[in-house]
Amino acid sequence: MQEREAWLALNMVPHVGPASFALLLGHFGTARRVLKAPLRALERISSIGPATAKAIRSFPAEETITREQKRMVARGLRFLTLRDAEYPALLREIHQPPPVLYIRGSWTDADRRAVAIVGSRDATPYGRGVADRLACDLAVRGLTIVSGLARGIDAAAHRGALRAGGRTIAVFGSGADIIYPSEHRKLAEGIAQRGALLSEFPLGTNPHPGNFPQRNRLISGLCVGVIVVEAAVDSGALITANHALEQGREVFAVPGMARGRLSQGCHRLIKAGAKLTERWEDVMEELGVQAPSLQETVQQLPPVEGEECRVLSLLGEEPVHIDVLIAASKLPVPVVAASLLSLEMKGWVRQLSGKTFVRLHEG
Amino acid sequence: MQEREAWLALNMVPHVGPASFALLLGHFGTARRVLKAPLRALERISSIGPATAKAIRSFPAEETITREQKRMVARGLRFLTLRDAEYPALLREIHQPPPVLYIRGSWTDADRRAVAIVGSRDATPYGRGVADRLACDLAVRGLTIVSGLARGIDAAAHRGALRAGGRTIAVFGSGADIIYPSEHRKLAEGIAQRGALLSEFPLGTNPHPGNFPQRNRLISGLCVGVIVVEAAVDSGALITANHALEQGREVFAVPGMARGRLSQGCHRLIKAGAKLTERWEDVMEELGVQAPSLQETVQQLPPVEGEECRVLSLLGEEPVHIDVLIAASKLPVPVVAASLLSLEMKGWVRQLSGKTFVRLHEG
Repeated sequence: MQEREAWLALNMVPHVGPASFALLLGHFGTARRVLKAPLRALERISSIGPATAKAIRSFPAEETITREQKRMVARGLRFLTLRDAEYPALLREIHQPPPVLYIRGSWTDADRRAVAIVGSRDATPYGRGVADRLACDLAVRGLTIVSGLARGIDAAAHRGALRAGGRTIAVFGSGADIIYPSEHRKLAEGIAQRGALLSEFPLGTNPHPGNFPQRNRLISGLCVGVIVVEAAVDSGALITANHALEQGREVFAVPGMARGRLSQGCHRLIKAGAKLTERWEDVMEELGVQAPSLQETVQQLPPVEGEECRVLSLLGEEPVHIDVLIAASKLPVPVVAASLLSLEMKGWVRQLSGKTFVRLHEG
Repeated sequence: MQEREAWLALNMVPHVGPASFALLLGHFGTARRVLKAPLRALERISSIGPATAKAIRSFPAEETITREQKRMVARGLRFLTLRDAEYPALLREIHQPPPVLYIRGSWTDADRRAVAIVGSRDATPYGRGVADRLACDLAVRGLTIVSGLARGIDAAAHRGALRAGGRTIAVFGSGADIIYPSEHRKLAEGIAQRGALLSEFPLGTNPHPGNFPQRNRLISGLCVGVIVVEAAVDSGALITANHALEQGREVFAVPGMARGRLSQGCHRLIKAGAKLTERWEDVMEELGVQAPSLQETVQQLPPVEGEECRVLSLLGEEPVHIDVLIAASKLPVPVVAASLLSLEMKGWVRQLSGKTFVRLHEG
């Protein structure tokens, strides 16, 4: 058994979480040695209870990882350990990072600039609209949108990012092979194509309510900032925001009506110092590092020529349908289509779904 | 001519505003001497232009104040000068306070705890509802509500305070005899009965748009804090908020939907440090001095006895109709009515309009 496989196995042992995993690794040096250690040596470690020691000793590591790897291959999954270079750098920095991440899809360099958009499952149409729009606007500008695949705000955020043709990542409170809620199976498929599905839990782990607070620290841990859209005062989104603060990440909150139940959590965050967020500019501005690099991009864009100017001048950050552009520009259809294609290739505009277009840069 | 009358006269001279009034008074010692000063002496004062000097010299003071005072008596108006003990103490502290205030109604000691509620003329139903509710909740707790009698938020604030049976003050951008907009004549009547109509402008002054920014400094100047409810980014309410900051008063802003045009001003204020305000507690908390005195009141309230307990337990901060109380308490009608009367006299509840009741204190 290779050391990477031993990590996978140790992560599957009942009672072994990130804290005890780190403790055991510190003590024995490698996961392989942990799995082979005599019961007495395991029991001697303080904070490792006799139940955990027994669980490790009696764990059928070889056969379990063989089975787990077969299932991973069947599902298009692979795994990363904390020791792998590909492991998300920001996540590595948090307190007790997950030793093993199951992943379907890709984790790329671009995902270092990720923001989470989280909020209520029973969001209002207003909240879902804001989440979708923020995700779209940020994804179109190169930010990866991280969320939890839940109903409501989470789903709207993933969909907004997909609509923008951007990257988005869903972090599970279950095994990466168990899509929850099941009605989001198609959405999860789309996310896997344009980003990744991530989980720290072994395959087959059910979406137990107790998993979600633990999962939430991962959502914030992967990101430079967390945006909360609609959250009751006792919601999981506020737990994620708290994790973000502890991890030194930015917290953003979208306001709503003064006495709206789902605005209370966001308003409480704003009172406590979270950045009031109305639109993508609020996020880009606060993250700072991103804004200049975007500026540079603008300066490096190929110039706009001929009819493209007229088409570009009709575009703004609100999506505009191609028929509207044709009518307003008074240009022939092929000219508008060619201009849009050229503008998109030059990086000035982005085509969204439904033949609508947004402008990405001023100037 | 008495010195008080000379103040009234000098305040009526064209071109003489609060700044030149103070300058002239500093130079000549009394308003009477200013009005009698030779043209040359007036012209010698720097910052007093020749036009202003001529206007003072040629001003028919005696006959003008005779006419003005007759009109004031006819309208039930009187005036206060900066030298009068009754002049609002907080207003005295601002930069260039108005030398003369026309007043209809009363300015009482209770009005030292005044807050302004201001906002857009074309407010949404949401904004008007929040303004009305905040005004009612704060007025019921003894705060005086100051606003500008405009359509939208202003009118909702005055009405909320009146509904609570509280005190409210309208500050005019016209002469105190000119109700603007005229459709608020009845509202102004109600305000004069339960508070005051105030203006620094001579009678007959039309509501010229240029008067309102000047008027706005008075609204904030009279108050310990200014609450902005729905304001576009270029609105007069933001001018009032700026005055409040310059005058060292608290600024509160009510949030709204992320991209609502009338939320932009409030969100900008919150980003700049204004207190996000959802409900009356946010205001009382921030003003601090008020909260303890309210607490003391609670401790001094006469105890609740017998059937009163059952009735009080059914009341909260949301107004409840007496029929609902009768049904829910299962007590005879006269017992409920007597309990409510007793509770109101003891200071535990307040009757609002429409036979509804709110509870004022916990515990």
